Amino acid sequence: MRIDVLTLFPEMFGSFFEASIMGKAQEKGIVQFQAVNFRSFSTNKHQTVDDYPYGGGGGMVLKPEPIFGAVENLVSASDRPAASPRVILLCPQGEPYHQRKAEELSREEHLILVCGHYEGYDERIREHLVTDEISIGDYVLTGGEIPAMTIIDSVVRLLPGALGNESSAITDSHSTGRLEYPHYTRPAVYRDWAVPDVLLSGHHERIEEWRQKESLRRTWQRRREMINPDKLTKAEKSWIAEFERET
Amino acid sequence: MRIDVLTLFPEMFGSFFEASIMGKAQEKGIVQFQAVNFRSFSTNKHQTVDDYPYGGGGGMVLKPEPIFGAVENLVSASDRPAASPRVILLCPQGEPYHQRKAEELSREEHLILVCGHYEGYDERIREHLVTDEISIGDYVLTGGEIPAMTIIDSVVRLLPGALGNESSAITDSHSTGRLEYPHYTRPAVYRDWAVPDVLLSGHHERIEEWRQKESLRRTWQRRREMINPDKLTKAEKSWIAEFERET
Repeated sequence: MRIDVLTLFPEMFGSFFEASIMGKAQEKGIVQFQAVNFRSFSTNKHQTVDDYPYGGGGGMVLKPEPIFGAVENLVSASDRPAASPRVILLCPQGEPYHQRKAEELSREEHLILVCGHYEGYDERIREHLVTDEISIGDYVLTGGEIPAMTIIDSVVRLLPGALGNESSAITDSHSTGRLEYPHYTRPAVYRDWAVPDVLLSGHHERIEEWRQKESLRRTWQRRREMINPDKLTKAEKSWIAEFERET
Repeated sequence: MRIDVLTLFPEMFGSFFEASIMGKAQEKGIVQFQAVNFRSFSTNKHQTVDDYPYGGGGGMVLKPEPIFGAVENLVSASDRPAASPRVILLCPQGEPYHQRKAEELSREEHLILVCGHYEGYDERIREHLVTDEISIGDYVLTGGEIPAMTIIDSVVRLLPGALGNESSAITDSHSTGRLEYPHYTRPAVYRDWAVPDVLLSGHHERIEEWRQKESLRRTWQRRREMINPDKLTKAEKSWIAEFERET
């Protein structure tokens, strides 16, 4: 997979591309990263990339030329120009990001992520260039750079071979549809706080049952909307009745 | 404000703390950042920070000692130890992050963000040390580092003086409760695509009305759940009737 990021702050990606899983995935040849400053595709002599909005008002708007130019350059320079990349705009108006979108994007060959930075985007970029608009959540950020890192991290970790054994085995909350059960490690007593007896019992069935119940409890307490009442087992229904009695 | 990040990958924060708004906020003395490797608070000679989970299963679990040690060290080294910091765990089980939480955190003096990295956290960290657990969205990431950057960016930009004029004036989608209207800048015609006539008309009232309508249209098309039908004006109701006829 090839991932290009268009940004006015390519230096923000240096340590991200090199650290941890991303660095290893690149070393193994699973993914190839590039951060491109789209200012170099500006068509005027002052290299401006934004301008005042038509109709007035505050704020600046990213001009269409540098973004179109940068994307088209990446496509024509590609080894496989026939394969069309996904061109993803990071913006608060985009589709809310979910794990299933990460899975969809992980099947692509080439992603181009376009990051604005406090400016708005000229609408023609949305209408005629991008294939996807994504928002990572309902909060206001300074730019698209952190959302781009979010998407890259969530996609690259799904690529075959990207994760080592140490990491892949953790059961991830948002891939199972339930929040994770509590984890404990040594020491068995830290300060005054002891690990639950069942986890020290060596009784695998009881441990498994405890984990399923605690996973359901946490989901029920914190994110009840994730539980589909029609898909609960008999045991799960009786656990929920128990949680209700306890509150 | 003081912001400390506990992480095994402090190098991931170097360029983030220095770039753009974050760098400027630090230069102006509005905020002070620090990334602390909690491995240096490990209590054993191999400096391990994680261990196998009690009860078996894959994955590793972050031990309590290094995280308790690092947090307590930051609190006791603080100029104002009486003021208790918010200790925020980034995890998929946390409370979903929203703009109002960013606003709440922006009123604090000291934030400590705790990032795991594909390991789970020992439950005693959650129960006895942290004040908040936050998830930035329902997707799986390799670690808490990108979520920590997300929180820092969204909080710091709210601090008085952090944003320059060029950026503060943009109307942010998630602070108004509506998605933004389309923006346009020069050229008035790019390739074959023209800017809507109304924006070139110079007629301020009509421009304002067009923007309100397009903002409502985009919200209605993409994020209908953000619209409270009980709070619509008469004009907005008739616009929605128009959108419905068009589809």
